[in-house]
This record gives sequence, C-alpha cells and structure tokens, in this order.
Amino acid sequence: MVERDSDKHKARQQRLKQQVDAKVAQATEERGVLLVLTGNGKGKSTAGFGTVLRAVGHGKRCAVAQFIKGEWPCGERNVLEQMGVPFYVMKTGFTWNTQDRQGDSQAAERVWQGIRAELADPKVDLVLLDELTYMLSYHYLDLEQVCDAIAARPAHQHVVITGRACHRRLLEMADTVSEIAPVKHAFEAGIKAQQGLDW
Amino acid sequence: MVERDSDKHKARQQRLKQQVDAKVAQATEERGVLLVLTGNGKGKSTAGFGTVLRAVGHGKRCAVAQFIKGEWPCGERNVLEQMGVPFYVMKTGFTWNTQDRQGDSQAAERVWQGIRAELADPKVDLVLLDELTYMLSYHYLDLEQVCDAIAARPAHQHVVITGRACHRRLLEMADTVSEIAPVKHAFEAGIKAQQGLDW
Repeated sequence: MVERDSDKHKARQQRLKQQVDAKVAQATEERGVLLVLTGNGKGKSTAGFGTVLRAVGHGKRCAVAQFIKGEWPCGERNVLEQMGVPFYVMKTGFTWNTQDRQGDSQAAERVWQGIRAELADPKVDLVLLDELTYMLSYHYLDLEQVCDAIAARPAHQHVVITGRACHRRLLEMADTVSEIAPVKHAFEAGIKAQQGLDW
Repeated sequence: MVERDSDKHKARQQRLKQQVDAKVAQATEERGVLLVLTGNGKGKSTAGFGTVLRAVGHGKRCAVAQFIKGEWPCGERNVLEQMGVPFYVMKTGFTWNTQDRQGDSQAAERVWQGIRAELADPKVDLVLLDELTYMLSYHYLDLEQVCDAIAARPAHQHVVITGRACHRRLLEMADTVSEIAPVKHAFEAGIKAQQGLDW
C-alpha cells in the first residue's frame, strides 16, 4: 500500500514536472519587472519590503519611497537603512490625521523628486514605491509623470508598487499584479495593531 | 477653487478620521495573532519574510521554517540568518523535482521537529511557517499535531503561515487571512524567474 502510494505519487509528480518544465522553457526573457501589490488585504507593503529584503540578500542595490507612512518607528526601515538602502519618507501620516491637502501634496512631491532620481539610475536594481497608489488617487502626484518615469527606467530595474485601488494605467503597464483580498482581519475582531506585526 | 478643494478635503478627512478612530478604539486586545497568507498570486512568502524583517527591526525574536524550498540561494535567508534568526530548512526542492514521497515526508518531519520547539518557546515572538500548506495537502505532516502546536503556543507569539490552498482548519483558527490572487504574472508572459525578485 505504501509502495503503491509512493508509485502513484511519483507518477503524478513526473507529469507535473513535465508541465512545469515546459512552462519554464518558455519563460526565457530577463528584464526589469513592474510588480503591483494591490487590494484591501493585509500584506501589500509587507511583501514590498520582503522583496527589498530578498534583493538586498543577493547584493542588489535598492531604494525605497515610503508614501503616507513614516512618522512612527518602522521595523523594516530600521534594518534596511542599516544595510545601506536609501529611504525617501513622506512622514506625514494618514490623510485623515493630517487633514492638510497642501502640506501632504508638497511632502509627496518632495519624496517623488528623491525617488525619481533612483528610477533613472542604472546602478539601482530595485525601487519600492510603497503606498504610491494613494498619491495618485488623491492627485498629490501627476499620473503622467509617474508613468513616464517608470516606463523610462533602466531595462534591468525592477519596480514594486503597493497600495489599494491601483490606477488602471499602472495595472496595464505592470508585468505582475497580485490582488490581496482580506478574507478576515484580526483588527475587525478587536485586536490592536501591534508593533512587530503590523508596523 | 484651490481653497474650496482644500476645505472639502479637510471635511472629508475629518469624517474619515472619526470612523477610523472609532474602529481603533474598539480594537483593544493585544495578543499573538495567527496570520495566513494564501491564494495563487505572487507575494505570499515575500510578505511572510517581510513580516519577519519588520519584527526583527523592532528587536523581536523570530524563527523560520522553510518547507519545500531551500536548496538554492535565498536572499531573505542570507540577511536574516546573519541577524540571528534560526532557519529550519527542508532543502528538498519542489515535489515534482524530487518525486520522492518518503524522502520529502521525512525531511518535512525533521523541519517540523525543529520549529515545534520554537512554537513552544515563550522567548520567541514570531514564527514563520513558510509553505506549510503543502505539507498538509500532501499529508507529509499530521494536521492535528500542527493545529495543536499552534493552538498551544505562548499567548503573545505571532505565527505566519504561507502557501496555496490552506487547509480550512487553519483558516478557521486564523485571526487574519489574506488571499493573494494573481491578476497577471510576468512568468506567463515569458519572463524568467529572476534572482533578487523571485528568489
């Protein structure tokens, strides 16, 4: 019985391997990828920073723009800045706390000027634009300028965009789009946002 | 016009702030959360490792079990091991490459023995069980044992589980579940998995 299960497993895995190998053989292009992590679920920024961690771990040069957040301690930033990753941080906090369109807009523009230079730099392998989507929803940044800078980046450079309700122009430009949906969330069950897990 | 836009923005953000504040006031419980990152899209393991990065950045003690993967260089592991995070790695590779049920099963059990001790250790703040779901789908690990160890963990300890098709028992136990769906994927368009982005 064990023997038979084991044979079946082997046969099934051989068929799967043929399918996977065929797909891998077709995927031959190597170039910078635009990855969008959107949707209302938990894990968008976390996966964005996870991608930076992965790239840094392979000796790649990365840069991070942190829109919206940045006014309270950030675990990812603590580590990555120490490892030499430059951060451009808006530091304004959530729009519902600032309630200041002009101030937020200027802060966004300042961050954009910094990260735009990274997007144009062929020495940079990966750029994370964390929570960029809100800057476009609120018209704090100009959509055309952002799309142009991403389209004109060095061919090998990866870009990761996170945030809810990503603009369709960016979704069209993207190579990979993941939609992160909240099946359930601890916060809704009365559990606080906690340091080390949520920020 | 600018003035009026700015006033409207302020009023809208004030209403939003009231809603958010009310929700935050209701969320008062602090305890270890079980977070499941599942679905077929890109970003599950990445967000899992991003969570570890965040926690490490706040000085939290973490441990990682890496099921399936681990036989090729891993950017996240390069960095996190250097920072003192213990890794329990299966190192067998994909089931369709090994085609060996018994060998995979023993390797899974070995990793499980290591990480189970971390799940029982009150000094450990966060445990990542990367790609655990497949171990249960393939019956390499015993569902009851896994559920029991997670349920019996120290009250403050967070656990993150990643992988496709998470077993419903774990979904029921989870505090937060994000379903990551592939809207599109570069691989399907012929772009190779690349070091620093995909592994």
